[in-house]
Amino acid sequence: MNGAHALIRTLVDHGIDTCFMNPGTSEMHFVAALDDVPEMRGVLALFEGVATGAADGYARMSGRPAAVLLHLGPGLGNGLANLHNARRAHSPVLAIVGDHAISHRRHDAPLQSDITSAACNVSPWVWTSEDTATLGADAVEALIAAHGPPGAVATLVLPADVSWGEGGVVAPLSVEGLGTAPSPGLMPDIAVLEAAAAALRSGEPAAVLIGGRVCSGPLLEAAADLAATSGARLFAETFPARLERGVGRVPVDRLAYLAEFAAMQLDGIRHLVLLDAPSPVSFFAYPGKASDLVPEGCTVHTTVTPHDDAAQAVAALAELAGARPGAAPRQTGGRPDLPSGALTAQAVCQAVGALLPDGAIVSDEGATSTLFAPGSTSGAGPHDWLTLTGGAIGQGLPVALGAAVAAPDRRVVALEADGSALYTFQALWTMAREGVDVTTVIFNNRSYAVLNMELDRVGVEGAGPRARDMLDLSRPDLDFVSLASGLGVPATRADTAEGFNEALGRALATPGPSLIEAMVPPLL
Amino acid sequence: MNGAHALIRTLVDHGIDTCFMNPGTSEMHFVAALDDVPEMRGVLALFEGVATGAADGYARMSGRPAAVLLHLGPGLGNGLANLHNARRAHSPVLAIVGDHAISHRRHDAPLQSDITSAACNVSPWVWTSEDTATLGADAVEALIAAHGPPGAVATLVLPADVSWGEGGVVAPLSVEGLGTAPSPGLMPDIAVLEAAAAALRSGEPAAVLIGGRVCSGPLLEAAADLAATSGARLFAETFPARLERGVGRVPVDRLAYLAEFAAMQLDGIRHLVLLDAPSPVSFFAYPGKASDLVPEGCTVHTTVTPHDDAAQAVAALAELAGARPGAAPRQTGGRPDLPSGALTAQAVCQAVGALLPDGAIVSDEGATSTLFAPGSTSGAGPHDWLTLTGGAIGQGLPVALGAAVAAPDRRVVALEADGSALYTFQALWTMAREGVDVTTVIFNNRSYAVLNMELDRVGVEGAGPRARDMLDLSRPDLDFVSLASGLGVPATRADTAEGFNEALGRALATPGPSLIEAMVPPLL
Repeated sequence: MNGAHALIRTLVDHGIDTCFMNPGTSEMHFVAALDDVPEMRGVLALFEGVATGAADGYARMSGRPAAVLLHLGPGLGNGLANLHNARRAHSPVLAIVGDHAISHRRHDAPLQSDITSAACNVSPWVWTSEDTATLGADAVEALIAAHGPPGAVATLVLPADVSWGEGGVVAPLSVEGLGTAPSPGLMPDIAVLEAAAAALRSGEPAAVLIGGRVCSGPLLEAAADLAATSGARLFAETFPARLERGVGRVPVDRLAYLAEFAAMQLDGIRHLVLLDAPSPVSFFAYPGKASDLVPEGCTVHTTVTPHDDAAQAVAALAELAGARPGAAPRQTGGRPDLPSGALTAQAVCQAVGALLPDGAIVSDEGATSTLFAPGSTSGAGPHDWLTLTGGAIGQGLPVALGAAVAAPDRRVVALEADGSALYTFQALWTMAREGVDVTTVIFNNRSYAVLNMELDRVGVEGAGPRARDMLDLSRPDLDFVSLASGLGVPATRADTAEGFNEALGRALATPGPSLIEAMVPPLL
Repeated sequence: MNGAHALIRTLVDHGIDTCFMNPGTSEMHFVAALDDVPEMRGVLALFEGVATGAADGYARMSGRPAAVLLHLGPGLGNGLANLHNARRAHSPVLAIVGDHAISHRRHDAPLQSDITSAACNVSPWVWTSEDTATLGADAVEALIAAHGPPGAVATLVLPADVSWGEGGVVAPLSVEGLGTAPSPGLMPDIAVLEAAAAALRSGEPAAVLIGGRVCSGPLLEAAADLAATSGARLFAETFPARLERGVGRVPVDRLAYLAEFAAMQLDGIRHLVLLDAPSPVSFFAYPGKASDLVPEGCTVHTTVTPHDDAAQAVAALAELAGARPGAAPRQTGGRPDLPSGALTAQAVCQAVGALLPDGAIVSDEGATSTLFAPGSTSGAGPHDWLTLTGGAIGQGLPVALGAAVAAPDRRVVALEADGSALYTFQALWTMAREGVDVTTVIFNNRSYAVLNMELDRVGVEGAGPRARDMLDLSRPDLDFVSLASGLGVPATRADTAEGFNEALGRALATPGPSLIEAMVPPLL
């Protein structure tokens, strides 16, 4: 058994059965071994950023790592932006980077580069396997690192001769149930929990800010009950990896992207209790404005960190604070009417709110265009909302793909800005190839609208025509219907609200991927 | 004057007047300053890999660096693969990576990452500007590093507050004529030159291998005369950054990509004289095969390195070896007939050879499909041939774009494999936006054909259907006419040789960009 065969068998035995890939020559033995281990599903991408983003989306929905197979340093480079987003999402991902044979390294062949230094940018665990016999065991170490907590990108560099060498050993299940029941993490210091509980019981104005694992399942409910019992405001971090929403769930507003609005949400609080969320900071710095969004005089209680056992910690805090189960209200139903008339970004969000199927997964990379989407969908059936965790645009379509692979029985809706879509548009081809149920909505406003806003916010006064031209996507106009068709995904264009309603209804009722190009004016 | 304004003014004063860019919020002051310094041309790309590859192509044709503006660590990541190719091409490139404000760093906002570690992968010179007053001077240091020799990617990290801060200083022209007349480099050890000259005069079988700066202009002629005088074989490195070819130039074969063929080219030589080329090695390692392609018993003379003053060194070697100017034959004219009948990759290459305009620039990323292109174009008019220097695919279209920006009076022909095209296809939009004369030919053979070949070469016997499926691009078929149309580039499809001839003739006679999708069977 060669190294590649032993590696894939080890992964499957540990519950890793999906590999998003864009391989090259140095990965050919890995690819060939797919026929030796039919339980491993290979999902081909035309570009590495699609593969890494899909692994992120897969992890968010399944809680398990997918493997990603990349081709040397440049392949890792192409995948780096979406691994950055995965890092910020605390998504477990196993990045396998094929490298030249060990014997080939000293020749500095054209594709040689320093893979480790680039991997460190996104990956707290980087290891180069140097021996076929221990490759399987190295993979288990990588999986342990990936699972965390916190979930992380683990990078295993795989030299070609380690892959093709004979003497591969399938690693035994040294960590029981690694694939589905990772280590729970640490228990936070009880004194920290007691201080937070005391703050919440004090009656002083407080807010509970949830993130990460506390944005879904029983932890979300427990956090909401805790806030409701103590009269604290409840917010989710601005860009959660996965937020459960909709009818029957506890409603929670996200902290605003714009620092001015976030400051209003947090105004007057004396205690901020962080549950698996970082302390709030401005996304970017702006001249003369504070980066730290914690109000003056407010005490921050970092109660649950990404390293902690979130379930135990939240339960302990709830008990200390005397939280009453069921104290938080549940979201009641109520969808917006279908829009009519001119098509706007708001009308598109309204139509999505009216038609979103129960159990849907929304991948939101709409930038300015989806500002109204949380409001219009709050009363829809239960659904999950996936956001741009790390700010590296080009995440939305790959994450939608990966989520659909992880959850084949659910409808995925990708809400996508025109500018952002063009970073990793190749994802559509893999959607077609895999036949996944992803409905993509492109907000075509013919500009980097968010940058037109940011140009003003960073204090540029009276930006000139040459600057504005760098934010303009209308010369030439992008035609997303043609682009989607070129990648094998059926597409249609909507110019009116009625036309969009009809197209969205049809797309949601049709198996497989499709795309709707919504022609909208810039929101701002 | 703010930092951004001083920076751009400094660049323009030093001869840098083109900036390929994909900016975000942290780069907005740089973008705004384009209106303060109208001599700087901003060229917008939809994806960073397009911007970095275009800077490479620009440098290859102009000999000068362009600036590239990228958005934090993820933006650099997206541009990394083509910076890798630029590194291998020894192209001078100034990469400006916008970063968070210095005051914002400690907050670990979502887009924060370790830019320096990623930049080191491609850049021997990385510097973070920490002071608005010295930003201009930092840029001059960066340009000196970029110019070399060897030409290199210099990375200047630009925090947002250094950019927006007042007190910017335009750096004086401390290095005279930096933009056009960089440092000449070192003179090689005379003993090395003497040894190489003695070897060439010895009458023993020898070869001269040229690369880098010796592949064009007077150095190419001098090297050919040197080889012809001494009876040595003459080869160019496998993937030169820019090789001058065609009628009236000295003909030179490139060393073959396939190690088996390269071994035949070098068979029996006792001396190998390297002129700005690395010693030949196999592109990848293969089980049981040597990586080093230098024949047993052959002495390697590393006569001119990328650090050296190539002009002086080649002249000195020619004198020592007694080379006769004009000894090398010049390429005579003779184009192939236009092809007819079924369309194949070979027929496409034949048509290109028949119709290539004088002065054309060919960006060749055709992989297996352009195997016959050097032969079919050798008797065409004078032209330049740009190749995939670093092996990171997705270079061809961006390099074509950058070459066209650098040489607006010349026709650029991009010969592009289907798989490779999809990494950075967004380049077409910028071609349309800038109205450059780039004719793109896509070889659509519906597979990663080179990997089907490599699968066999790495020793995989009887690859199974699941492996073959990972190399297949026919499910669904890619439609490059639709893709190009979606990005604003007129496109047509050719199924027959006659149809292709007609389409190519029309495209070459029409100003602006266009694309021809050539439907061909895999060559191998």
